[in-house]
Amino acid sequence: MPNPKVLIASRQTPEVEAMLNDAPSEVEIHFLPQGEQLGEHLTEIEIIYGSIGEADFPKASSLQWVHQPHAGVEGFMYPAFKASDVVLTNCRRLYGQQISEHAFALLLSLTRSIPAQLEFMKLKHWERVPCIELAGMTMGILGLGGIGRAVAARAKAFELNVIAVDPEPIEKPDTVTQLGKLDWLPEFMTQSNVVMVCCPSTPETHKLLSHEQFNRLPDGSYLVNVSRGRIIDEEALIAALRSGKLAAAGLDVTYTEPCPPESPLWTEPNVILTGHSAGASQHIRARAMRLFVDNLHRFVKGEPLENVVNKQKGY
Amino acid sequence: MPNPKVLIASRQTPEVEAMLNDAPSEVEIHFLPQGEQLGEHLTEIEIIYGSIGEADFPKASSLQWVHQPHAGVEGFMYPAFKASDVVLTNCRRLYGQQISEHAFALLLSLTRSIPAQLEFMKLKHWERVPCIELAGMTMGILGLGGIGRAVAARAKAFELNVIAVDPEPIEKPDTVTQLGKLDWLPEFMTQSNVVMVCCPSTPETHKLLSHEQFNRLPDGSYLVNVSRGRIIDEEALIAALRSGKLAAAGLDVTYTEPCPPESPLWTEPNVILTGHSAGASQHIRARAMRLFVDNLHRFVKGEPLENVVNKQKGY
Repeated sequence: MPNPKVLIASRQTPEVEAMLNDAPSEVEIHFLPQGEQLGEHLTEIEIIYGSIGEADFPKASSLQWVHQPHAGVEGFMYPAFKASDVVLTNCRRLYGQQISEHAFALLLSLTRSIPAQLEFMKLKHWERVPCIELAGMTMGILGLGGIGRAVAARAKAFELNVIAVDPEPIEKPDTVTQLGKLDWLPEFMTQSNVVMVCCPSTPETHKLLSHEQFNRLPDGSYLVNVSRGRIIDEEALIAALRSGKLAAAGLDVTYTEPCPPESPLWTEPNVILTGHSAGASQHIRARAMRLFVDNLHRFVKGEPLENVVNKQKGY
Repeated sequence: MPNPKVLIASRQTPEVEAMLNDAPSEVEIHFLPQGEQLGEHLTEIEIIYGSIGEADFPKASSLQWVHQPHAGVEGFMYPAFKASDVVLTNCRRLYGQQISEHAFALLLSLTRSIPAQLEFMKLKHWERVPCIELAGMTMGILGLGGIGRAVAARAKAFELNVIAVDPEPIEKPDTVTQLGKLDWLPEFMTQSNVVMVCCPSTPETHKLLSHEQFNRLPDGSYLVNVSRGRIIDEEALIAALRSGKLAAAGLDVTYTEPCPPESPLWTEPNVILTGHSAGASQHIRARAMRLFVDNLHRFVKGEPLENVVNKQKGY
């Protein structure tokens, strides 16, 4: 085949783009100029580093492979893309470390009363406030992929009993004491003092955490969401916070992002919002580019790519 | 011997004091009435649950044993107490879980920009802010007792390389890659991206973290102190924050407590103060009383007590 043409549509810092010097010599690399439209640069492009929406997709007649430089791929799940032969890869498994750190930042900020202490600092007020010890509690992890497993390993070190729900036929890791499929969710909720949401956004997970599920929680439980806001029915979440089913919630993501000004989540007591920052890390851009460059070498050799997304499952 | 008289000088909730129903029948339990002075209730008292200061100590002529219902015992290190035969026990090993949770709450709040996000919430402003990933960094733990070990186990799960300094001839736990004595401190500082202070306050540790030691840190390191403020030279700490040697500091304790209003720590950017709350837990008072009741049984049987403090070392 002629030299495949690559379009870097998601632009990076010069240092990260310089990593493309290690790409195979067979590929021809183009950069989407800043401020220009993707749709005008798709001619003969076979590989995209970045996203492509439903409107532009028909213009990408040579497209063979898209690498999404993030983990979530719900933006690709339109019919024409799903039905096509275009391969989709993502950055799953590159996020476990920083997102699990963020998940514990949210959880521990809530249990150790960090927001109250920061307000005291403004008043130069020194006060010991009640805090909640997590050791001995049960953490329920919804979604045991790369992020869920990283959370599980850390939770075990914090002496939490870890249980998990995942729809895939995976083996139970040693860090988890009980693993069930989605039909185990009701029982999982009754046991969870902390619910960690780590699953992708798919039609099956849409508003999965509903009034009915929140009502099963032990009183005074904690909720942390570091994956996607659409998994939670936010009206049910607010009700659970107000009824005391939930002691507090740490949310990196909301149903609509940015979280709209009229959302009660902005002002609800015992809620922390962190603006979709869980994936942030000083290392992530270089790590994502390294994966792409390695996949380019596999592509030109005709080898299977890493991190191919199952377009029917949506992850 | 006649029935030993116990004085509960540190009063607890009714539920926790009810645990004294499990005390051996041989002991006679008295409670210091709320608002009354310890010095007036010491006649014939052989056992105190609580503290006794230098002024009251001569009045406690029957005293054989004091149980400090906390971990720090520097308040007992006056000459008459150190020279006496009175046994001192404390609550060490009951704090590892909650204090290590607090240590990570401080560290992760700093690395994941929780204070900035809480300010954004007040403005209903949604923004992804830069965050620092800890995985792969080196954490240096100063003091590898019960708290230091609990921190080490959690840090290993966070994929940190853990090194430690401790003056005792202890065996290196598997969670720690390198363990040295105090003479290794200079080298330990050059390797530590995160310094966790977990050691007791003694003459040897007073202002141990000085200008000289902070200057050895890699630029942009983190400091967390969950033990005692007197271990840190606070002028040197402020200088290290301002020079960039330290990116941020999370302090549960300060040199003087409450932290005085004139301290720059209240307003220094990238500092979190939490008002000596690290030991707080919904479980700690019951856990401390359980240890005391168990020790009372040992006492009446003439068995060695648990958690006897070495009064010469001060811990």
